[in-house]
Parts: sequence; C-alpha cells; structure tokens
Amino acid sequence: MPNSAGTPRAQAHEWTATQIVAAINDGTTTCEAVTRSCLERIEAREPIVQAWQYLDRQKAISRARALDRSGHRGPLIGVPVGVKDIIDTCDMPTEYGTPIYKGHRPANDAACVALTRKAGAVVLGKTVTTEFANVHPGKTRNPIDPTRTPGGSSSGSGAAVGDHMVPLAIGTQTTGSTTRPASFCGVFGYRPTWGDLRATRVMEASGSLDTLGILARSIEDVALYRDVLLGVAPQPVSREPYVPRIGFCRTHAWSRLDSTTQTLLEDAAQRLARAGANVADVTLPVQFEQLETAHRVISGFEFARNFTYEIENHWEEISESLRNGRLKDGLSCSYETYVENRLLVERCRTLLAPVFDQYDVLLAASASGEAPVGSDATVNPWVYMIWTTMHVPSLSMPVFRGPHGMPIGLQVIAKRHDDRRLFAASEWINARLI
Amino acid sequence: MPNSAGTPRAQAHEWTATQIVAAINDGTTTCEAVTRSCLERIEAREPIVQAWQYLDRQKAISRARALDRSGHRGPLIGVPVGVKDIIDTCDMPTEYGTPIYKGHRPANDAACVALTRKAGAVVLGKTVTTEFANVHPGKTRNPIDPTRTPGGSSSGSGAAVGDHMVPLAIGTQTTGSTTRPASFCGVFGYRPTWGDLRATRVMEASGSLDTLGILARSIEDVALYRDVLLGVAPQPVSREPYVPRIGFCRTHAWSRLDSTTQTLLEDAAQRLARAGANVADVTLPVQFEQLETAHRVISGFEFARNFTYEIENHWEEISESLRNGRLKDGLSCSYETYVENRLLVERCRTLLAPVFDQYDVLLAASASGEAPVGSDATVNPWVYMIWTTMHVPSLSMPVFRGPHGMPIGLQVIAKRHDDRRLFAASEWINARLI
Repeated sequence: MPNSAGTPRAQAHEWTATQIVAAINDGTTTCEAVTRSCLERIEAREPIVQAWQYLDRQKAISRARALDRSGHRGPLIGVPVGVKDIIDTCDMPTEYGTPIYKGHRPANDAACVALTRKAGAVVLGKTVTTEFANVHPGKTRNPIDPTRTPGGSSSGSGAAVGDHMVPLAIGTQTTGSTTRPASFCGVFGYRPTWGDLRATRVMEASGSLDTLGILARSIEDVALYRDVLLGVAPQPVSREPYVPRIGFCRTHAWSRLDSTTQTLLEDAAQRLARAGANVADVTLPVQFEQLETAHRVISGFEFARNFTYEIENHWEEISESLRNGRLKDGLSCSYETYVENRLLVERCRTLLAPVFDQYDVLLAASASGEAPVGSDATVNPWVYMIWTTMHVPSLSMPVFRGPHGMPIGLQVIAKRHDDRRLFAASEWINARLI
Repeated sequence: MPNSAGTPRAQAHEWTATQIVAAINDGTTTCEAVTRSCLERIEAREPIVQAWQYLDRQKAISRARALDRSGHRGPLIGVPVGVKDIIDTCDMPTEYGTPIYKGHRPANDAACVALTRKAGAVVLGKTVTTEFANVHPGKTRNPIDPTRTPGGSSSGSGAAVGDHMVPLAIGTQTTGSTTRPASFCGVFGYRPTWGDLRATRVMEASGSLDTLGILARSIEDVALYRDVLLGVAPQPVSREPYVPRIGFCRTHAWSRLDSTTQTLLEDAAQRLARAGANVADVTLPVQFEQLETAHRVISGFEFARNFTYEIENHWEEISESLRNGRLKDGLSCSYETYVENRLLVERCRTLLAPVFDQYDVLLAASASGEAPVGSDATVNPWVYMIWTTMHVPSLSMPVFRGPHGMPIGLQVIAKRHDDRRLFAASEWINARLI
C-alpha cells in the first residue's frame, strides 16, 4: 500500500488499480508518478517478457500529466492499462497479431477503450495477441519462467499484469483466451456474461462466443473495471457475511486434466467445505460432452466468414496453422451443421440454468496444469470450450501452485448476469484458499 | 428478361440479380454493359432520389471490365450492388451518416462486402443512411413520390433498389431499418435470423438486436444473396407444391395501424385462405405488450455505450435528436433495468417458439401505412419492435397499394433459422396476392 511501502513512486507498479486510485485521490502520488513507475518496470522486464506490441512512453506520460492538471476524478484515475492488440485505438497502431495489418491505424477507439479513457485511465500501449486471436503464437514469454508460454490468445495482457507492468489489461475470449493466460501467469482472469460488455471495434473471431476479458491482480479491481466497461457507476464487491453454495464440477473432461491439478481441485473443494461452505458434486447432463465439437463447429463457421477479406486478399500472409485449422474447418462446414450445433448449445444452456437454483457458483479447472514449456499459447482448448459456450460469467483465481512452482488457476462460474455474485463468492473462496 | 426485352444494355438496370447472372452466363450481355446501364439510370434519377452517399463510376466500370476479362463465374457475377454507408469498404469512404466521419477510409472490407465481391458482384457505391442508423434523416427521397420519405435507416438501399438503380442492396436492421424502407419503396426487404450473417466491420448500433438486411426486387434474389452472405453454395428457393400453414398476427399494436392497412391485411388473409392456405388468427401472449419498452431499453443501453468515443470526442457534432433521444435514454439506464428487459425478451422468444409448431409462417404489418410526406425516415418504430426482438427471420413483400397509390408491404415471419422455409412460403403467398 502506498502509505506503508517506502517511496511510492518506486513501488506503484506493484499496486492494484484500487490502490492507485486511492493514492491519487489522497494526494499521496500522482498519475505521472504511477505511469513512470510502470514504464520503468516495463523497461527493465520487457526484453525478457515481450508483452507489448506497441508502447508510447511519451504519450503515456503526457496523458498522465494532463490528468494530473485536470483534476479528473474518474473511477480509474491514473491507472495504467494494457489493451490487447485486436482492439482498436485511435492513437496507436492495431495489428491483430498479423503482418497483414503492420502499422494499421484505426480512426477511432473501440467502445471499451473509450470507456477506459473516460474513467481516467492511461492506456500505455497494445499487448501482444496470437494471430487474429487464434492459435499462431506471438512473441510473449511467461514472466515467471520465460521458457514457458504465457498462454493465449491474450498473451501480452496476461503477462503484463502478471509481471506488474500494469495492474489491469483488456483481453478477449472465444475459447479460453483470458482464462488460460490468467492461469498460466498467476493473475485473475474474468470472462463476463456474454453480450453484457460491448465489443464495438474489437475484432470479431466468432461473434456467438466472443466476449471481452479482464486481467487483474485483485477481485475488487476486476469488479471495478467491469463496471467501467459496463458504463455504470462502480459498486464495491459485496462484503456481507455470506457463505456460498458451491457446486464442484469435474466435467466429462476430468480424466484429461493433469493428475496434480485434479488433486489441487479436490483438495480445494474439501478445504472450502471445511471452512463452512455447502459444497456438492455437480454432474453435467450427457449432452455436455458434445459441446467441444459444437464449439469447434460454431467458431470455425463464423471465423471463416469473418475473415473473408483477408482470405481473399492476403491468403499467403495467413499462418499455415490458421489456414489448415479453423479456416479449413470453417469453410467446409455447412449451414445445417452450424445451426444444429448452435441449437445443441442452446439446449445445454437451458439445462444448465436450474443448476444455479441450487448453487451460487460452480468450481472447475482453469487449465489442465501449469504453463507448458515452449510457445504453444493455446494448449488444451477442451478445458474452456464447455464454459465459453454456456455464456456464463467466470473468474479464474491464481490460488494453486503446480509441481514446478508455476501458478494454476481455479475457475469460479456463476449464472448469466450474476457477475456481482460471482465476485462476492470468489472473494469468500479466495480468502479461504490463499 | 434479356432475351425478349429489346436491347439488353438499355434494360439491364431493370433486371433482377438472377436475370443478370443468367444473361452474363449466357453471353447475352457483359458485366460492363450491366454496370453501365445501372450507372445511366443513376445519372438520370439521382438528382431527385439522392440514394447515394458515394459513387465511383470509373471504379465500377473498371471492376466490371476486369470481371468480364477474368471469366469469373461467381453466383453474383456482374450484379451491381449498393452498400449501406455504415458498412466498411476498403476502397470507398464510409461515413456512418455523420459529419464526424467525413471522408473516413476504412482499411478493409466488412465481411459481407468481401463475400459480395467474392461472389463476383460490382459494388457501385455507398447508399445513404440516417445518422449512425438512428433517427436523424439523410438526404434520400422516396423514388415513387419525392415529397415522401423513403423510410430508414437503410434509406438509400431501399430507394436505390426501388428505383431500379441496382437490383440488390445491403441494409441493416435494429428496429425496422430494412422492413420499413422496403415497404415504403415497394421492394422486398429481408431481415435474417439474428446471428446467422456475420456483421464484422458493420457499425454496431445495438448488438443484441442488430442484423444485416437485404433489399431486392424478387424473392429468389433475396435467397441467392442470403446464401452468398452466409458463405454457402446457393440453393434455389424450393418450388415443391406446398400450401403453407399461416398464422395471421394482428399484435397488440393493431389499433394503431392505419385503417386502410388493417383492411389490406385482413383482405390478404382471406384471399390466402380462399386460395387453399390454412389461415388462422394468432394472438400473442400478453407479455408481448412489453416488448416495445424492452426494445427501447436494450437498444438505448447498448447504443449509448457503443458510441462512447463519439460522445466523448464529438458531442457537438451529434444531432440533437440522437443526443436527446437514444443517447439520453441509454446513458441514464441502469444495468439492472437493462438485464430485466433482456430476460423479458428471452421469455417471449420461448413463448413464441411453439407457435411455429402450428404455423409455417406468420403474417403481420410491414408498416402502419404508406410512406408519409416529409423527411421522418424512422416513423412508427412500434410496428417493428416486437419482431426484431424475437430474432426471427422476416420478409417484407410489396403486395399492397395504399390510398395514394404508394406501396405498402406485407411482413411474413418464420421460425429462427427457418429462412429457407420463409422464402418458399413467401413465394406461395406472393404469387397469390399480386
């Protein structure tokens, strides 16, 4: 905390967004000092981590100074933020992780960026994404162990927050693109209820699955930033004495998780039960086993049509893995198969809804295990596919350590639009597991 | 038809897309001749109709010539198309109906434009939209009576197709922005099942309601263009002997329709019954009366957040009607009210689904009456709100004439994803009413 941590300027990059806002409003520090602290951290660490696709130090400092002069009192005053590079910015390039858009300059900000700036934040720069938020990896490395992947597709957003370069970053999720890097980089990763946060001028991968994502180092920061992106006055996370009803959901993919992860999850469920929570096993209906295929069909069909311009005009500049993966699958898929899978997903959503009459939240895996060595940023998509298709809000919390000391997340899931309850329950759970 | 209509070149602008494709494939005409015919029509009529925000004659002719040389055999070979000016084009400005984006040049094509070009079409230019596809009107006038509105927000797309400037145009719909201009300009207007056609790089007004729209002069053209935009191989409209089961749906807004329109609709239902269709009255559950409010709440909430960049940076350049209308409503709306209304809409969708076990299609009004005199392009939104919130596909057919000889449409509605059945039933209905 600013008041007890020696020279504030040297430490500010380690603070949460909530702490930064408090310190600026107290007069303990300034927007400029916070921004400089984050920029110094980036300067020291970026050669190893490589989280940034674009960074404009001078523009960030100018913006911070202007905020200091203005007396702006927005809910994110002076908070440095990273923005995934598939999200348009009016004053920085947006390259979507592909050489096709090298140096591309959008005319305006995505809605989420404009809301971020309106709240008084300082957009430091653009964070690395995999190619078109698909599988071909970017340059970013895991800040905890650079021989490992940071996870993707929101690789730079996860790594920058995990490495204390910024307290907050925006990502997106179509499969596990926020949950996975959050788990691998040891931060909180939030996927909101599908459809709640506007994605205007955010690259669409697969519209019926895509959401924004938030990477942060505390639950209260996630809740604060979510309200900003929702365009409403921020409300604190509910602190009322509250013991959540928890469903432990292994899913049909349980046997594919690393055995250490299985043990960590089961141990956590037991600890929460001992702490007083009502914890019970939840078995999903058998139809849920088809959701992996459904996700693959839906995302492929939509992705292949969304990128018609690039397919027609830049085929040779698209990676082999994308051409032979999602594009090939999607282009050969019929409308009838696509619709059949969308309807299956809708039936599963209907089946999932009553589960939340019995449970406030569900617990599930955030990853199969630790971030693997190498550059495969989008490993084990099957961990994420079920939950993303369900359109439910989810928070990955960095509560576990794996056999190599790397972080592993725990995923907490709530009912659609019940994101505030998700945060309250996650606070309760987090406090009992760390 | 080309083979029986004198000099093909002089007449080509009156052909449907299907006729153009057939004539080009037959060698009866060329892409260049068709494009020149449309450009001549535009030259003659544009001073009165003003359907075009941007038109590049030379580029269109060059494109048509290149297609003639290439031997391209796409499903829309040589078909001139107009594109609503809220849809990005890589080689033409995209101004979204506002001075804020005067001369704005996107870097790439929207998915729907790229699919259109891939099919061999000639994008002639950009058609006039109301400001941000909201209520502030553009310059376009009704081609049948220029003292009247063409309807909006897809004003130029409706007028250009109605005036035989192009056989096809893309529009969009958030409330009635395709159905209304189709009715007012005497053309077919199709709103697809929500979510089926990708809207990548199409301006989002309200994502949970927005769809693309197609304006055309025949049902087979609508079906053809829908398959192109869906990215699948075109299938002809089913011609099998088929008598549709028709539900006649007056809705709770019936008393607000012009009495002439009421008479026209009731007479049509009787004629279809006499022609052998099973026609019965359908009364919607009482909850449907709340859908007007729900539409207003949802669209306002989403619209106000989507345009944060413009609100923050260009407030003074936004029209008074938008600032004091949808933006004011949306900015003051809480998340709780927004969600409550989304959930109401979802419940109504569930209530509507079983209606389609009994009926192949529903009949409803496409407009309150004829296009009114004046420039109010988005009159009577209540006609459209129910159906747009339901996410069902809809076709407005120009089968009626009002008291002043102006066209009035009949809206035919089918189950979600049942767009092909919608076309087949509409063919049957259209043949019996014209």
